[in-house]
Amino acid sequence: MSLDDRVILETLEKLGKKVCDQILRGEPPRLEIPARTLANIVWDPGRRMLKLGSRRIRRDFLDMGEAKKFMQTMLMLSLIVRARREGDYPTIRDLYYAGKHTIEYVDERGRRRREETWESQRESDSVIQDIEVATGLLREHMGILHDTKGKIVGRIRVRSGGDVIDCSRMGDGAYSVPPNPDSLEVLEVDAEYVLVIEKDAIFNRLNKERFWEKNRCILITGKGQPDRSTRRMVRRLWEEFELPVYVLTDADPYGFYIYSVYRSGSISLGYESERLATPGARFLGLTVTDIYEYKIPRNFIIKARDRDLKRAKELMSYPWFRESREWMRQLKLFLERKEKVEIEALSGHGFKFLTRRYIPEKISARGWIE
Amino acid sequence: MSLDDRVILETLEKLGKKVCDQILRGEPPRLEIPARTLANIVWDPGRRMLKLGSRRIRRDFLDMGEAKKFMQTMLMLSLIVRARREGDYPTIRDLYYAGKHTIEYVDERGRRRREETWESQRESDSVIQDIEVATGLLREHMGILHDTKGKIVGRIRVRSGGDVIDCSRMGDGAYSVPPNPDSLEVLEVDAEYVLVIEKDAIFNRLNKERFWEKNRCILITGKGQPDRSTRRMVRRLWEEFELPVYVLTDADPYGFYIYSVYRSGSISLGYESERLATPGARFLGLTVTDIYEYKIPRNFIIKARDRDLKRAKELMSYPWFRESREWMRQLKLFLERKEKVEIEALSGHGFKFLTRRYIPEKISARGWIE
Repeated sequence: MSLDDRVILETLEKLGKKVCDQILRGEPPRLEIPARTLANIVWDPGRRMLKLGSRRIRRDFLDMGEAKKFMQTMLMLSLIVRARREGDYPTIRDLYYAGKHTIEYVDERGRRRREETWESQRESDSVIQDIEVATGLLREHMGILHDTKGKIVGRIRVRSGGDVIDCSRMGDGAYSVPPNPDSLEVLEVDAEYVLVIEKDAIFNRLNKERFWEKNRCILITGKGQPDRSTRRMVRRLWEEFELPVYVLTDADPYGFYIYSVYRSGSISLGYESERLATPGARFLGLTVTDIYEYKIPRNFIIKARDRDLKRAKELMSYPWFRESREWMRQLKLFLERKEKVEIEALSGHGFKFLTRRYIPEKISARGWIE
Repeated sequence: MSLDDRVILETLEKLGKKVCDQILRGEPPRLEIPARTLANIVWDPGRRMLKLGSRRIRRDFLDMGEAKKFMQTMLMLSLIVRARREGDYPTIRDLYYAGKHTIEYVDERGRRRREETWESQRESDSVIQDIEVATGLLREHMGILHDTKGKIVGRIRVRSGGDVIDCSRMGDGAYSVPPNPDSLEVLEVDAEYVLVIEKDAIFNRLNKERFWEKNRCILITGKGQPDRSTRRMVRRLWEEFELPVYVLTDADPYGFYIYSVYRSGSISLGYESERLATPGARFLGLTVTDIYEYKIPRNFIIKARDRDLKRAKELMSYPWFRESREWMRQLKLFLERKEKVEIEALSGHGFKFLTRRYIPEKISARGWIE
């Protein structure tokens, strides 16, 4: 559902108004913001999602240790509000520059000092995140732009900014997922499932073969580690249209991690997961057992590196993997064999093996992992 | 112009047939292929392009030092021919795996030996390149797929695989450039120029502002260092539709290098330039002098690193920079000041400065560099 621009502006203004009211009442200005700290990211087993806990942080303007962060938050809020009022769509980098300036002041010992509003984009991005959790809006809702990686093609028609886009009429190309997928109105979905493909080149191949037409589905790629827009798009298709979501990656911990990001997000950015994660996402493959069951030739198998083993152990500590007996079996087998393969290794069985046999068979035999 | 599938298959088969004929005539099998070595990449000042010189390499099957490379070339050729015959669209990685196998043989001293057809994708990619220069076809023509990065939006309508795609009806998204832009039929171009944008987020912003509508143009991004498809698409719009092409990047040697790749390609892959380069591409900005003329605040300026200086010196050795007095002035100034800025630094003058002032003013004042 697309959030109305007016509602968004009002929500942002309300946050600023709260602080103004405090000042007018003669109170010390103070913000209360849900804490994005690791300790406040909790796993909700019922909804199978990471979410923010109830801890909140207070940011007092009159506390020397918090005054700068308070100023940064209000500065960023004012930039975003102004952009919304004037119909601008700055990028996160634009916001960094638009707010960056030097403050000159005299300190408590009478010395003239200069300080930057922020030194790096890490600081300005961090207050954008604070504004996200304080307002319950995604930065995408606030008209803040960023790089987008996602491509979509298949049996879906959407409306964006007055244009109707039929993703089954893209030829050999695809529709690039817009920065704010919530602004898309989905007009028609005539698909049985969503297939999320790790690799862009494999996406291009399946599109060229018109896999989505024969198999009545929607293809999406986030080109490796997915960005927020791609994740939000997948989430909407799963949540609003109840489409099964299958994820296809290499058989290695990096691929499993990409699945994990679609499914649950990353723990350090757990506050995003409530809106971006797809807890029902299923891992189609390639699994560790596939390496042996599909008789991948020995000389196609790649020896795992130390960082692969490290990542596999990390995955085993995530609640959504720990709760899955099958995932634990796969990861243990990986740590035992220390072997990985790429999806393209299936081409040893012919170029059509992936699309004619592997994917359809796995889906019809319910061979995925959850 | 899209090359006919039949013609492509025939061209590939002809290369194989030549070798068969040699064998049937009792001659030693031998391939002659234009050399892709640096020494055979020559600068053509008239066409302002890198091109392959006249040197050719001979690859003799009966020469112990060349037999393996000969085998690899014929193996790859057979895989590509088979894919074309069967309507498959493998990726370069698929081809690596499809051809990878172990050859067992007995050597001249009677020892049993095992050797891989190829050890790494570098080897299989290299013979694809040989087949490209031997046949005069791009791998894209041969139906070989790969990652694609490009996005296009604006006043252009194309046909791809039976679908008509109107790039002015993409909402907040864009059309992702297909792997083989030569397969696109351009139906209508109602634009005055092409604006190539280094950064994806800036592309998204200009698209969101519908810059292409107000300014009657086509927007393209290759997301940083462009891939072959994006370069080929830009080339076609310049060559076939005589559209001016403007490139917009950060004011740093990395940005200048991206311009250089669109304009002339890289010297080490110079053999691609004849089909992928756009010698008429103009550099719109940001230039080194822009930093001072547009009064970029001191605290937005980034100190150049050693690798920036190194790259700037490299650029000064490229013929297409050396021939340009203005480019040499810019690069000298950069080496003197050792300062760079990002395009987003213009947001210090307001979010609309880039689109309402900088780009239109630069174009109308002919302030680009060639």
